[in-house]
Order: sequence, then C-alpha cells, then structure tokens
Amino acid sequence: MKYLQSAKNPQVKQWKKLLKRKERDITGTFLVEGFHLVEEALKENRVKELMISEEKDIPKSWNVGNCSVYILPSHVIGDLTDTQTPQGIVAVCYQEEERSFDSLGLKKLLLLDEVQDPGNLGTMIRTADAAGMDAVIIGHGTVDPYNPKVLRSAQGSHFHLPIIHGKLDVWMKELKENNIPVYGTALEGGKEYQSFAPLDEFALLVGNEGNGVNKELLTQTTANLYIPLYGKSESLNVAVAAGILLYYLRNE
Amino acid sequence: MKYLQSAKNPQVKQWKKLLKRKERDITGTFLVEGFHLVEEALKENRVKELMISEEKDIPKSWNVGNCSVYILPSHVIGDLTDTQTPQGIVAVCYQEEERSFDSLGLKKLLLLDEVQDPGNLGTMIRTADAAGMDAVIIGHGTVDPYNPKVLRSAQGSHFHLPIIHGKLDVWMKELKENNIPVYGTALEGGKEYQSFAPLDEFALLVGNEGNGVNKELLTQTTANLYIPLYGKSESLNVAVAAGILLYYLRNE
Repeated sequence: MKYLQSAKNPQVKQWKKLLKRKERDITGTFLVEGFHLVEEALKENRVKELMISEEKDIPKSWNVGNCSVYILPSHVIGDLTDTQTPQGIVAVCYQEEERSFDSLGLKKLLLLDEVQDPGNLGTMIRTADAAGMDAVIIGHGTVDPYNPKVLRSAQGSHFHLPIIHGKLDVWMKELKENNIPVYGTALEGGKEYQSFAPLDEFALLVGNEGNGVNKELLTQTTANLYIPLYGKSESLNVAVAAGILLYYLRNE
Repeated sequence: MKYLQSAKNPQVKQWKKLLKRKERDITGTFLVEGFHLVEEALKENRVKELMISEEKDIPKSWNVGNCSVYILPSHVIGDLTDTQTPQGIVAVCYQEEERSFDSLGLKKLLLLDEVQDPGNLGTMIRTADAAGMDAVIIGHGTVDPYNPKVLRSAQGSHFHLPIIHGKLDVWMKELKENNIPVYGTALEGGKEYQSFAPLDEFALLVGNEGNGVNKELLTQTTANLYIPLYGKSESLNVAVAAGILLYYLRNE
C-alpha cells in the first residue's frame, strides 16, 4: 500500500484524466466508484489500482492481492468521481479487450446503434446481464460505456458480460453466416414481436432514442419487429423496449 | 392574449411557485414545458394558462380557445422551467382529480409503492400508457408525478391515462372485491411470472428501487411474482421490470 497525500501527485493527476473519454480510450482503463462496483470488478479480476480514503477500510472478504492499493485523503478521492456523495473508494479497471465474433462463441447478443443517454445504455447493459445475454455489442456513435453515469446505471453488469465495441454491419453479417437470426426493432415495416417464437440463439438490435435503428442496418437484419402500442403513447423508452424483447425472445 | 414584460409581475411570480411541489399540491395545477407536452395537454383539454415567448408562435393547428394565453419575454419563460434549453413555451395544467375506484370502471392498473426516481416514475407512466393500462395509482411516498423530470420522462402520457394518488391497501381491497387479481412483485416468496397466464383484467404492484414493495402490502396481494435473473445481475431496473410484466400479463 502507498499513501499519497497531495492532489498534485502525478499519479493522482493521471487518474483524474480518466474522467475524460479520450484518456479512457487511450489507456484501455476506466474508473469505477463505490463499494458495490469495486467489489464486482475485483471478483472478475478487472482491477488494476484501488484507491481508498484514509477514513475507510477495505472489507476483509475482499481479495486485493492482484492490484496496487493506494490510501488517499478523502477530498482527493472525491476529485476522482463525479458523484455528489462519494463513498471514499475508487478503482482503475481494465476495459474489455476488442474481440472478434469467432473468438467468443456467442449465442445471444444485444446490439446497440447510437444510443445517446448514459442511463439508457447502463440500464440496457444491466438488463442484458439479467436476461442472460452473452455480450453487448456497442456500435459507432453510442455513448461511452465507461462513462460514470453508464457505470452507475449498470450496477456492476459491465463485469458480468463482455461489452464489445464493434462495427454493427460486420457483426450482423457474421451472426447471419452462423445461422443466428438478427432482429431489428422498427416502428414501420416490421411485425409484432409476439409473432416470433422464442429462441436459444438470437441477436436483438435496438437504436437511438429519437431516430431508432439506422435504416441501412434495418435492411441487413433477418427480420424486423415492433412492440404494439395499445394506448396513446407514441413510443416506449428504448431500455424498456429492450427489456420486453430480450425477455420475450429468450427461451425460458 | 396578454403581454407581460416583467419577471416581477405577480402572475409570473405565482407561476414560478409551481416549480415547488407544495404549490402544485395546493392549487391542483402544474407546469409543463415544450411544444410536445403542451400539445398533448391541449388535446386533452387540460391547459389552464399558456405562456409563450415573444419570439415563438403558437402552431396554427392548435386550439387554444379554452385557455388564457400570455406572451412573455423569453428569459421570463426560461424562469418557469428547469430545463437547460427551454423551447419558449410553458403551460399551467390541471392535475388529475382524486377519484374512487367505483367511479372509474378500471380493468388494468399499475400500482406504485414508494418509487423514488423521477425518471423511473415517468418511464413507468409512459409504459403503462403504451401497454394500454387504464390508470396508474400512486401510493404514499412516491415522488411527485408532476415533478418536471417525471413529466419529461413520461413524454405526455400524463394526459393519456388517469394518474391517481391513492392508498394502495384500499385500492387493493377494492380490486380484489371486484375480482381483479393484484400481482405483487417480490424477489422472495413469489413465483416466476411465466407461470401466470395473461389476463384481460389485473393490477400490477411494483415498488421502491432499493427495497421493492412494502412487505405488508405483499401479504395483501392475490399472488406475488418475480422475473428470473439468468445472468449475474442482482436485479432489474424497476421501470424495465414493469415493462416486461405489463406486456406479459396483458392479453394481446
């Protein structure tokens, strides 16, 4: 363990840079905050460095043998998070490596096209985990999954299934070549989701909050489906829609 | 139409008070912001007063015959909303009247117990609308449904179905006496939701983000159910869970 007293310490300055996406992308690491998220990261051996306030203790049940531990004044810990009531514990974690379809043997996937809201993205990662998906594929233009708000909404699910950046058209082609159907979501030109049978293998593609899935991508799916609106609302929240469809499409 | 130039005008001061729950409760009115929400409120004849920036025009298709219209400088309009990029239009709307079960003839309801997050509440109102529910019953301890964040998340669904404050135990008793089953959601002591058949009439009871539904209420339901977690996540977001269950339980 090392004790770092000053916010001006170069190590502390380097950690602070991880609050910006650019540095997260360059280093392949990201910050998580709070006991629950740090514990989930530790369980999956994804913690590089652990920083804890001098006023807090590492729970005895935790195994921190594989990471460097730093003790900091609590105001310095506070500088490493955007939460209003930081819990006094932060960790630098490793991002998921980029991986190809072939290396993974995936059967059930959620594909995301230009999702903008961090809460929606985090909620969908959490839902994909709950529904037993094998991975979430993040297409170009979607908000950074390692954004602190996304991490909070996902409640640790980042460490439970692979979150992979990828080209959606390439993934869709690979999936179809492996006989895994890709279902797009579209308000127009699709079929009611209830007309599809649950499956052991499938990919679900959902899209941007305002515009839905890119039209070009929708021409490359196996089929497109929609959720009927029985009342007067014009649409569903994308994370709610993803939840309804993932739980419907998966075989019990 | 009236032109009000000053933020110090007593009328403007009165409107500003509606940013606080206390004044909304006293007056039975609330503020909505933006063209979409105001349009939805107008369609349902729920607008008392309409305030528009002098830089904006009321769309020609709107019928504003039943409400008072005020023209204000745009910075004064901005004071009446908590949004960062106000659209220059705000309306004072009438809240739903308190109503009893008997007066309504409701068949499909969503009951909410101590939901804390405005985004979750708004999303559930929107989902209940989409799923064709007849009303949302808001129990004691739930965040104010007329909070601006709730209104934004619900995207106008407040005007599409009754949002009724009520005592959940009283409503549950009435529902059961009318042979409408009440399903509680519980992680422990319930059955998988897939073991229940879809119905024409039912009430679904969901609860607080951290603690779920009050245990005492769960003893008063017809049955309790849960959504299986197939991965490693410990729970689903409450709005996602409500969406999965409402779409599953309703008959197509």
